[in-house]
Amino acid sequence: MGLQKDSNISIGSLKKGSKNLITDVKGVKVGHVTLDDGKVKTGVTAVLPHEGNIFKEKVMASSCVINGFGKSVGLVQLEELGTIETPILMTNTLSVGTVSAGLVRYMLEQNDDIGTTTGTVNCLVTECNDGRLNDIRGLHVKEEHVFEALQNASENFCEGAVGAGTGMVCFGLKGGIGSSSRIVELDGSEYVLGALVLSNFGSLKDLTINGDSIGERIYREQKEEQDKGSIIMLIATDIPLSERQLKRVAKRSVIGLGRTGSHLGNGSGDICIAFTTANRIKHYSQTNIIDVKMLDDDSIDKVFRAAVEAVEESIISSMYHAHTTVGINGNTRRSLREYLK
Amino acid sequence: MGLQKDSNISIGSLKKGSKNLITDVKGVKVGHVTLDDGKVKTGVTAVLPHEGNIFKEKVMASSCVINGFGKSVGLVQLEELGTIETPILMTNTLSVGTVSAGLVRYMLEQNDDIGTTTGTVNCLVTECNDGRLNDIRGLHVKEEHVFEALQNASENFCEGAVGAGTGMVCFGLKGGIGSSSRIVELDGSEYVLGALVLSNFGSLKDLTINGDSIGERIYREQKEEQDKGSIIMLIATDIPLSERQLKRVAKRSVIGLGRTGSHLGNGSGDICIAFTTANRIKHYSQTNIIDVKMLDDDSIDKVFRAAVEAVEESIISSMYHAHTTVGINGNTRRSLREYLK
Amino acid sequence: MGLQKDSNISIGSLKKGSKNLITDVKGVKVGHVTLDDGKVKTGVTAVLPHEGNIFKEKVMASSCVINGFGKSVGLVQLEELGTIETPILMTNTLSVGTVSAGLVRYMLEQNDDIGTTTGTVNCLVTECNDGRLNDIRGLHVKEEHVFEALQNASENFCEGAVGAGTGMVCFGLKGGIGSSSRIVELDGSEYVLGALVLSNFGSLKDLTINGDSIGERIYREQKEEQDKGSIIMLIATDIPLSERQLKRVAKRSVIGLGRTGSHLGNGSGDICIAFTTANRIKHYSQTNIIDVKMLDDDSIDKVFRAAVEAVEESIISSMYHAHTTVGINGNTRRSLREYLK
Amino acid sequence: MGLQKDSNISIGSLKKGSKNLITDVKGVKVGHVTLDDGKVKTGVTAVLPHEGNIFKEKVMASSCVINGFGKSVGLVQLEELGTIETPILMTNTLSVGTVSAGLVRYMLEQNDDIGTTTGTVNCLVTECNDGRLNDIRGLHVKEEHVFEALQNASENFCEGAVGAGTGMVCFGLKGGIGSSSRIVELDGSEYVLGALVLSNFGSLKDLTINGDSIGERIYREQKEEQDKGSIIMLIATDIPLSERQLKRVAKRSVIGLGRTGSHLGNGSGDICIAFTTANRIKHYSQTNIIDVKMLDDDSIDKVFRAAVEAVEESIISSMYHAHTTVGINGNTRRSLREYLK
Repeated sequence: MGLQKDSNISIGSLKKGSKNLITDVKGVKVGHVTLDDGKVKTGVTAVLPHEGNIFKEKVMASSCVINGFGKSVGLVQLEELGTIETPILMTNTLSVGTVSAGLVRYMLEQNDDIGTTTGTVNCLVTECNDGRLNDIRGLHVKEEHVFEALQNASENFCEGAVGAGTGMVCFGLKGGIGSSSRIVELDGSEYVLGALVLSNFGSLKDLTINGDSIGERIYREQKEEQDKGSIIMLIATDIPLSERQLKRVAKRSVIGLGRTGSHLGNGSGDICIAFTTANRIKHYSQTNIIDVKMLDDDSIDKVFRAAVEAVEESIISSMYHAHTTVGINGNTRRSLREYLK
Repeated sequence: MGLQKDSNISIGSLKKGSKNLITDVKGVKVGHVTLDDGKVKTGVTAVLPHEGNIFKEKVMASSCVINGFGKSVGLVQLEELGTIETPILMTNTLSVGTVSAGLVRYMLEQNDDIGTTTGTVNCLVTECNDGRLNDIRGLHVKEEHVFEALQNASENFCEGAVGAGTGMVCFGLKGGIGSSSRIVELDGSEYVLGALVLSNFGSLKDLTINGDSIGERIYREQKEEQDKGSIIMLIATDIPLSERQLKRVAKRSVIGLGRTGSHLGNGSGDICIAFTTANRIKHYSQTNIIDVKMLDDDSIDKVFRAAVEAVEESIISSMYHAHTTVGINGNTRRSLREYLK
Repeated sequence: MGLQKDSNISIGSLKKGSKNLITDVKGVKVGHVTLDDGKVKTGVTAVLPHEGNIFKEKVMASSCVINGFGKSVGLVQLEELGTIETPILMTNTLSVGTVSAGLVRYMLEQNDDIGTTTGTVNCLVTECNDGRLNDIRGLHVKEEHVFEALQNASENFCEGAVGAGTGMVCFGLKGGIGSSSRIVELDGSEYVLGALVLSNFGSLKDLTINGDSIGERIYREQKEEQDKGSIIMLIATDIPLSERQLKRVAKRSVIGLGRTGSHLGNGSGDICIAFTTANRIKHYSQTNIIDVKMLDDDSIDKVFRAAVEAVEESIISSMYHAHTTVGINGNTRRSLREYLK
Repeated sequence: MGLQKDSNISIGSLKKGSKNLITDVKGVKVGHVTLDDGKVKTGVTAVLPHEGNIFKEKVMASSCVINGFGKSVGLVQLEELGTIETPILMTNTLSVGTVSAGLVRYMLEQNDDIGTTTGTVNCLVTECNDGRLNDIRGLHVKEEHVFEALQNASENFCEGAVGAGTGMVCFGLKGGIGSSSRIVELDGSEYVLGALVLSNFGSLKDLTINGDSIGERIYREQKEEQDKGSIIMLIATDIPLSERQLKRVAKRSVIGLGRTGSHLGNGSGDICIAFTTANRIKHYSQTNIIDVKMLDDDSIDKVFRAAVEAVEESIISSMYHAHTTVGINGNTRRSLREYLK
């Protein structure tokens, strides 16, 4: 459950979805595998765009590389074809290859046409570097963890130091997985836009919550650390958007990111991926020409606002829900909750 | 009329439109103003995407900057919004400002809401440098020539050394305006894709027609000249394509261009703009969400082939139709026709 | 002079340049022509990158189109070649063509090789829509204003409702020209990074100064207005940066912009251009291979911070210095200063 | 050894390097692992940019995604930072994850600072789909093959159906690895530009060699097949180029590709990566500001020509050297040599 009233933190003014999570977008599910044992602080998180066969019924998508110091896999084809055709996996930087290999096996199991009667498959795997808390050189993530994370996928999921977020650090405090959602009204109907982030960036001094420079205050008690992390931001929606419009929405994530205090550090791989469940592209189409829906661009400002708010709140939620963690070499990152109130 | 049977030149294998011109796409019109007097060898060409008010009913579009040594105006907004909202004007490089100013006046005359009750307008003006034959420093194009070119617009138009093509040079011979079209069958119906180019690039030695290195033969009689020109390529179609797909089609123009002998010279501004008349975007939409059509990407290869063939043939047609021209300082560029047969 | 101590506003923590203006970068000059007469509220602003012949000695540059609902001219070639070869002009949206035409005349006067023995010239003209205060349909900017703005260029220049900023509106209040600078130490020497903005964007409710939501308070007294504007952001520096690095710096402008309250509205053309005076590219090079300097990317974070702070402060400075203005149809935009203290 | 005189095929007019291979660029090495056993027809090819520690001394680089229907890994960071910091690996599409995982292990072995005292590492792995001849669903490539390919790296290497090229198909005939090089003179000294391709694209009918439509003739004897492949093109040079210039060179690969008959088919992942050994970027720089060299862009045309010729000849060489291969389900692809009299 995203940030609720008892947190006393709420970003922006738009109405929130019922769970205040990315899974408020119907069909979206999230699953974690958490590896938390001594110096092993890592994991895998899987986001499923819908409940059917994603390869056979792709979702329209786009991405925005805000700062490209990152090793995510699958963005080239996503941009060319404007679709996502696998679950979106998250893990630590050095395990991207292994998770890709696991995801290939999963997709081959689900689709016996891949590599025989049809082409190959474009795996989407994103990452942040959890090496400050995790024994990242140990390569503890295995291919089977991909299957496990996918099996764990559910509308209800935990935030904070779980899954791929287990060993992440945000603004010098404990980061990880965070999520939030907003309601947008179009043509008299309610639509949902949800965000999910894997937060691992920022310098403590810069942390800002709702305009409050809380980081400066905490900093007096903590040692500083260079901004070396990254952030992966996913945006899901049931609003009909074209690939071009999804890119415009993905670009707005930078505003939510900036408001928490980021200045897009050199070493931070800041990437946003946005998809809509409203435009599905069949792998085997019956016709050459297909119908899709998009937004009139004059109506897109409220979608932009929803994206900005949901991303900003997801980042804060990732920190709010993360518990204090002691990792490799005794490295410790405290929970934001210890400093609130 | 594009290249016809009597030219003994035909590119590719696809069926051609009835006129073999960009105006085979219903609604598209082309008009020229030719300034041809002594050392003045320049002009304006206007392409209208459809017969209505283009600002109120925009066409979906995209562009591809193949080599950006060029001064075209309007591409930034075209890419962001995926639409064209004015006629597309062509002229010489140093007259882009004047033609833009003229096009603003034209659009203000046609739309009294621009700049008052609605926003401004994104003028689309493209160019090549005709300074080898034209007194380009004389700035002979005036704002009224924009109005004149637009008034001259028709389904039937001349190719060669006319309009913006009056002073252009292609592969060391006379270049200018060329056009061609191809038929594409989708879901059992016939669609048209047309191209129009303003050709002004290439080194004589490199000229290749249908795989025949004719340039090398002509070169023995001519002095060489560095590739310093540019080419503007327009692609129009009535095939339903998304903005992303229009960009994919625009990108294929480079193959047609390469087959004539270009190696994308440093100083050549090589730009392609593609639009579809099938997806119209209203300036004042009645609904937030709108319906559009696109192609299944698995069916796009024949559109790519049509684009490659139409662009390649347009370039050759621009040279075939251009007559030998004597310009500033007695500079002469001969017609390709003098060397055929 | 940028924001000084008496304003009681200061953004960020880095040391400022002596004037706190873009002209703290040695050689950079700024000149205005202000057209302020009844319903005419517009003008031209010129920024000169250095004191020599800019066509013959270009500066290395890059740009970032944050939101492309804009009509700026010259970005295609700037990106391809990584250089600026004319002064950078600013004006209202519908006058871009006229200002381009004027800038062509200016460049021809200064360089008799353009269009004869060498190629053409890539004019850089940027814009915002001042139609809320200015009779923009009247097209009051003339070509001679380009010459005048260039002649007025100086290290000392006014901010606020002057030059291209005369009729601009920012967060529902009066916007215009603002500037600021920051000092960056590298290898033991001090370098300067300066910013200059033409501000014309934002919804009043969103205005935020240093984390303080001042816009919400002012909004209770004012009617709301949709975000329809734009912002042009220039960054100049004497730090040696490659074209790739200049793009990275230009991208960071979005963080400064976001912190003032922007969510990158659909209709806002948000564009940043960055150049360095440290890498000059000669139009006529004596050698094929040339020496340039760049930053080690591991040292670029402090340049990013300087860019974020200078852009954010430039925006606030543009509003602070702008006086309350009554324009076309009696439309009034008040100065931010009326609401401070 | 690239195409030699006995092949009677030579592309273009520029002087070739002594081996006519990418390894004519000093320091570049290539190694293969070939898996060729019954239905297993696949492998790994490794390209080393220089002989030292590539992570500690990176090479300046850029890339161009000509058609993004591909799954290559590492391009996001390559574009952001303009460097390559690992060997470049090639394999089949479904083995990219495994090869990435193997490359991570290799890099960790070579660099004990990765993931502890310094950041992570950006692995560069490219691919084509060899599923027409290879049992690609069998996932026969293992992590140890990465180490083996790297150990096999040498200045002398085989072309054709070897390494990653073992199961590739080009224009319906047998494709694979091809290479070529060209000499470029600058400031009185000789430099080298070399290309290496992994060819797996094209429809037989379209195959063109030096303007000769040989594919149409062969097609009368063969059944047609849809263009479903891909091509990876590497360009290496010792010419000093900036990241921007390397991208310009990479873009020209499309001309060489087009001249062999490609129309950039929808399903073809066409990607070019270019690097220069002349600009090395140290992982641990002693200074904030560093010296680099670049080309005056007015001298770049001969580099463009060299790239076009070397890529075109590499493609033909990949087919010339590939032997007839019988793969999975008895699928057979014949050698081009059988059709060259």
